[in-house]
Amino acid sequence: MVAEINEERVAGGGLLHRRALLRWSAAGAAGLMAGDAGAQAGSPVSPLEPGAPLSPLGARGAAAERIRRIVPDLPFPGSGSSRTPLQLLEGTITPNDVHFERHHNGIPMIEAGTHELLLHGLVRRPLVFGYEDLLRYPRESRLLFIECSGNSRALSAAQPVQVSAGELNGLLSCAEWTGIRLSTLLDEAGVLPGAGWVEAEGADAAGMTRSIPLSICRDDAMIALFQNGEPLRPAQGYPIRLLLPGIEGNASIKWLRRLKVTAAPAFFRDETAKYTDLQPDGKAEMFSLRMGVKSIILSPSFGLDLAGRGYHEISGLAWSGRGCIRTVEISADGGASWAEATLGTALPKALTRFRMAWQWDGGPAVLLSRATDETGAVQPTRALWLATYGTGQGYHGNAVQSWAVDAMGRVAHVYA
Amino acid sequence: MVAEINEERVAGGGLLHRRALLRWSAAGAAGLMAGDAGAQAGSPVSPLEPGAPLSPLGARGAAAERIRRIVPDLPFPGSGSSRTPLQLLEGTITPNDVHFERHHNGIPMIEAGTHELLLHGLVRRPLVFGYEDLLRYPRESRLLFIECSGNSRALSAAQPVQVSAGELNGLLSCAEWTGIRLSTLLDEAGVLPGAGWVEAEGADAAGMTRSIPLSICRDDAMIALFQNGEPLRPAQGYPIRLLLPGIEGNASIKWLRRLKVTAAPAFFRDETAKYTDLQPDGKAEMFSLRMGVKSIILSPSFGLDLAGRGYHEISGLAWSGRGCIRTVEISADGGASWAEATLGTALPKALTRFRMAWQWDGGPAVLLSRATDETGAVQPTRALWLATYGTGQGYHGNAVQSWAVDAMGRVAHVYA
Repeated sequence: MVAEINEERVAGGGLLHRRALLRWSAAGAAGLMAGDAGAQAGSPVSPLEPGAPLSPLGARGAAAERIRRIVPDLPFPGSGSSRTPLQLLEGTITPNDVHFERHHNGIPMIEAGTHELLLHGLVRRPLVFGYEDLLRYPRESRLLFIECSGNSRALSAAQPVQVSAGELNGLLSCAEWTGIRLSTLLDEAGVLPGAGWVEAEGADAAGMTRSIPLSICRDDAMIALFQNGEPLRPAQGYPIRLLLPGIEGNASIKWLRRLKVTAAPAFFRDETAKYTDLQPDGKAEMFSLRMGVKSIILSPSFGLDLAGRGYHEISGLAWSGRGCIRTVEISADGGASWAEATLGTALPKALTRFRMAWQWDGGPAVLLSRATDETGAVQPTRALWLATYGTGQGYHGNAVQSWAVDAMGRVAHVYA
Repeated sequence: MVAEINEERVAGGGLLHRRALLRWSAAGAAGLMAGDAGAQAGSPVSPLEPGAPLSPLGARGAAAERIRRIVPDLPFPGSGSSRTPLQLLEGTITPNDVHFERHHNGIPMIEAGTHELLLHGLVRRPLVFGYEDLLRYPRESRLLFIECSGNSRALSAAQPVQVSAGELNGLLSCAEWTGIRLSTLLDEAGVLPGAGWVEAEGADAAGMTRSIPLSICRDDAMIALFQNGEPLRPAQGYPIRLLLPGIEGNASIKWLRRLKVTAAPAFFRDETAKYTDLQPDGKAEMFSLRMGVKSIILSPSFGLDLAGRGYHEISGLAWSGRGCIRTVEISADGGASWAEATLGTALPKALTRFRMAWQWDGGPAVLLSRATDETGAVQPTRALWLATYGTGQGYHGNAVQSWAVDAMGRVAHVYA
């Protein structure tokens, strides 16, 4: 059924005012019935046989299976990433089994009873915490995104790569994390004058270690024990991981075994050879840890073509390492005009779902989203981002992304 | 290690001011190290062998397995419930595979392409919606609890039942639901004058059908399609379920196949023989659909004994069918004195996590929690609840619950 709404446009290309959602009914997608055929229409009446029995765990339906795409980092065993299929998910919560992963030498299987966390260095009293010890400490729960610093790296390619939104941007997930404020443990150990950094080391075979400014550790850093209600899964750092809200994911050290308070950063391998921002002049910016303001349109997106003209909801995710999302603007005409999307609950350093009513007239369209966070930071255009970093930079890619819709409703990745 | 803090008490029995969390360090649970033994302490250094490889889905660790307890409703096939192990979870989100279930004749396995929703009765234009049709409509996402009307029924027993908090109260879960406002579909069909109720029918073998006031359907009722990011699972109503925020779970019809707008309620089997509130005088209150204000302490609770005296965090969940939780008060001395707990993010009609600092002196203690919602409604004592309903009432049990701690740290269910 072709839906057309000719009122309340808020920008070019068919973007509608939110009020239109309440009045689009006359052109809706449902099938009209001639008169009231009653209970004969709709699904068949109730089956005569009982359904499946109760079970200890509720499985996904076959049609609803969601799995992550794996991108191995050959030839290093256990190294690579699995990406969240963002374009197939709704809302803001990532189920734990499809949360993205990025490992540098595989997933260690650790028994909590054998694991300890050492806190030492420039502290009055070095401390060792067993897992059971940590369970005694005061906790907090927060919805927080984690984004890999190398997320959306494909946007640096000369030509737009034709893959799904999740393959482009799926080193990004969001969960409700529960744990202990790191500041509580630092206070207990007693940080000494002269301290300015904390080295965090994981118990994986890669010995992943990063230097983190003490100010970040004292702010809202968490020793995470639970994810979406349940204990961390092995691939997410069981039994404990460092969780740095708004900071590049690599620094949220999984399988955390050691925190050393120091005066200066240590310049570990993963903050010199990697995870630095190469500038066009060949120099590299280091410790650029905070993730920028960013948004992506997930529906429509590559692989999710439009079934027909008429009403569609443009929907996606926005986030910022600096706090809450303030606005997301949408363009349906390649950036010529913009209108504000409706935001779901906008929590600091969490994914925020945005939605925009759109009347697609059946012609070519180019869709963009642009987020602004509570500090006023605006997501840059790709041209601006490239002018800052050049094409050699593989981290902190937060440029505006674009999807082109052709007259057949097919969606392609473009550089608008 | 025995922790003692002798300051900032806010009520009897050792309840501490939240500020104490920042100063309890001197008596903390961690092991002290003599000097800085450095990287030799804590967990062993990094393993020399790579860990497990990446996989399409991230599994739970064996030690972190969480399953639901099944309570069959014999001899009816497929009838019964599975209960969320609330005492083993943290935060507020229930993972989809341990969301509670209550079925009356098993789980129908429905293919979305064959399923249709009929909207008819007192409407200008009866409509039929296929699943693909519904995917075209505007959506919203909300964190919402669902609680079975019969939850916590065991609290009516003459003697307190000694089972876990999840077995007592686990017909309760919380998820981020995404779907379509029912009011959007009602507006499209055009509700006629004289309409006051909506009959909602499921496509299970029980033909579960309930009458719902039109005012609730017009308010914030949702046609839910997604749960915690992914399509509904079969046991949660795939492909579509009605979701009535704050209303008893039985009315959030799963496998929704029909909505009929009517002038009066139909008095279906499940709103006459069941799901009514039997009063002490033998009469029954009907259509008491909204769930009351309620809270439960999950840590400590039966089965989760205290390992030793000193600091403990008292933690649990609060919720109300009327909106947001305003306060949760805790007593550690059987109700003689109370202090306010710290609340996590309090969203309307969602679970809210509360936490309270507690210094356990090693003596007997009785712990209670009492919630107040934004309308000012206060969770009743068990005595007050029984005076209203008597022991014959099996629904809407929201009385204050109590855990007794003995000198060994063992936790028992008591009526305080």
